[in-house]
Amino acid sequence: MKLDVYLEAEKKRIDAYLREKLPSRSHYPPQIHEAMLYALFPGGKRLRPILALSASEACGGQKEACLPFAAALEIVHAYSLVHDDLPAMDNDAFRRGQPSCHKKFGEAIAILAGDALLTFAFELMSRADDMATSLAVIREVSARIGSLGMVGGQTVDVLSRGGEMDQPTIEYIYTHKTGQLIAASVRVGGMAAGASPESLASLTRYGEYLGFAFQMTDDILDHEGFARTRGPEATREEARAFIAKAKDELTFLQDRAGVLAAIADRVLVREN
Amino acid sequence: MKLDVYLEAEKKRIDAYLREKLPSRSHYPPQIHEAMLYALFPGGKRLRPILALSASEACGGQKEACLPFAAALEIVHAYSLVHDDLPAMDNDAFRRGQPSCHKKFGEAIAILAGDALLTFAFELMSRADDMATSLAVIREVSARIGSLGMVGGQTVDVLSRGGEMDQPTIEYIYTHKTGQLIAASVRVGGMAAGASPESLASLTRYGEYLGFAFQMTDDILDHEGFARTRGPEATREEARAFIAKAKDELTFLQDRAGVLAAIADRVLVREN
Repeated sequence: MKLDVYLEAEKKRIDAYLREKLPSRSHYPPQIHEAMLYALFPGGKRLRPILALSASEACGGQKEACLPFAAALEIVHAYSLVHDDLPAMDNDAFRRGQPSCHKKFGEAIAILAGDALLTFAFELMSRADDMATSLAVIREVSARIGSLGMVGGQTVDVLSRGGEMDQPTIEYIYTHKTGQLIAASVRVGGMAAGASPESLASLTRYGEYLGFAFQMTDDILDHEGFARTRGPEATREEARAFIAKAKDELTFLQDRAGVLAAIADRVLVREN
Repeated sequence: MKLDVYLEAEKKRIDAYLREKLPSRSHYPPQIHEAMLYALFPGGKRLRPILALSASEACGGQKEACLPFAAALEIVHAYSLVHDDLPAMDNDAFRRGQPSCHKKFGEAIAILAGDALLTFAFELMSRADDMATSLAVIREVSARIGSLGMVGGQTVDVLSRGGEMDQPTIEYIYTHKTGQLIAASVRVGGMAAGASPESLASLTRYGEYLGFAFQMTDDILDHEGFARTRGPEATREEARAFIAKAKDELTFLQDRAGVLAAIADRVLVREN
């Protein structure tokens, strides 16, 4: 299938770049660098950097120019998973079938590896070629992953544990814990390509709808959130509606909308 | 005493700026913003931002231009203390006579508050007026606080617990856990003022010597590190020698060296 070939090639491109840029295990102290690499490899589908690269290309940009930002987005995602898995947070002993970072390296090193990954993501963004774009991307990403964004979402998620969540709370968690980084990924791609404010606004809505649908299919797999309050069938129906709305936002891309549209469709059939 | 008046005024300037820029408790979710503010206020002596502002002024820069960077350095320091105090790390229940952040808000919120502070520090650095300086400072700070800098130092510190440390290990921890952020503070001040590479090199050595002396006086107070392996008197003697070397590096500043020299002297008589 054509999309699969594309996604696999992009994943390879991103993985190669990450391997090239991350400090290797031979750097002192080795434990922290092992833990950082462990959090990144083998990794998942690399959805966020692929969204960035695809959005960049769709807007007429060069993928190479977007690559530092795309990689940084994946590194931010990896840091957030390492910290979310900690015993004080979601207490997950496994991640993608492997022991989670703190199970493998201990809690202290996992906390520090997350900190170092987040720091490295900003270092990477600051070293891109174009100065104005670098700064704009750092502003964009920092605003969307901080206390008013992704960390805010995780905060509300952690504080809501045990009790039933009301609809606004579930929506806040959806749009912040997962949605902000996905929206940032698409926007960063557009920014790297010099997209117009109008194009960025369309990409933002595409990213937001996609994030919503992504979180819904997540909930169906985990029997949580909307899937628990509304049932899996109603949730899947709503996810489908969001994907349709996401794709509607791509009309400005004309014949370049294909990849982003296909990625959106793929969210509905994902299995993990 | 003149230096005290200066330090108090600078602390007020920094505190006012931090209060203005940090999201207030009225932002959702309030818990994370309360924890972030708790980690920053009342705070300590604000050594790092004061070093940045003083270095900037000594090099002929405007303090206002350096303020976002100075504040970011204090925010980075606050994040590192919150994470270092966690049970999995140094397990400190108190910080400056108050319950540490995780004692007050729980471990999950403390981890997230540290993450959000680190993220916010980068956001602040990215929003300064001069683009080239912003990026240079972000590169400088991220490189010095990541896995090859401050986090590396904390990693080795955590991994060395319980056993006796050899000299190179103690030195690595000194120069990384504390030294890198102090050196970064002085350098960032110089960078904000457009200092020459030669001036920056002198400031770097000043910061490195200062960081060494600072950690030594810390160890004397805590009966750790050098103070344990060599005794407090030999350690104090060595700290004094490092302060002398630090001050020797300030000759390029001529009659503008006063404040940085006085701050260096103050490290020897600090009480906490």
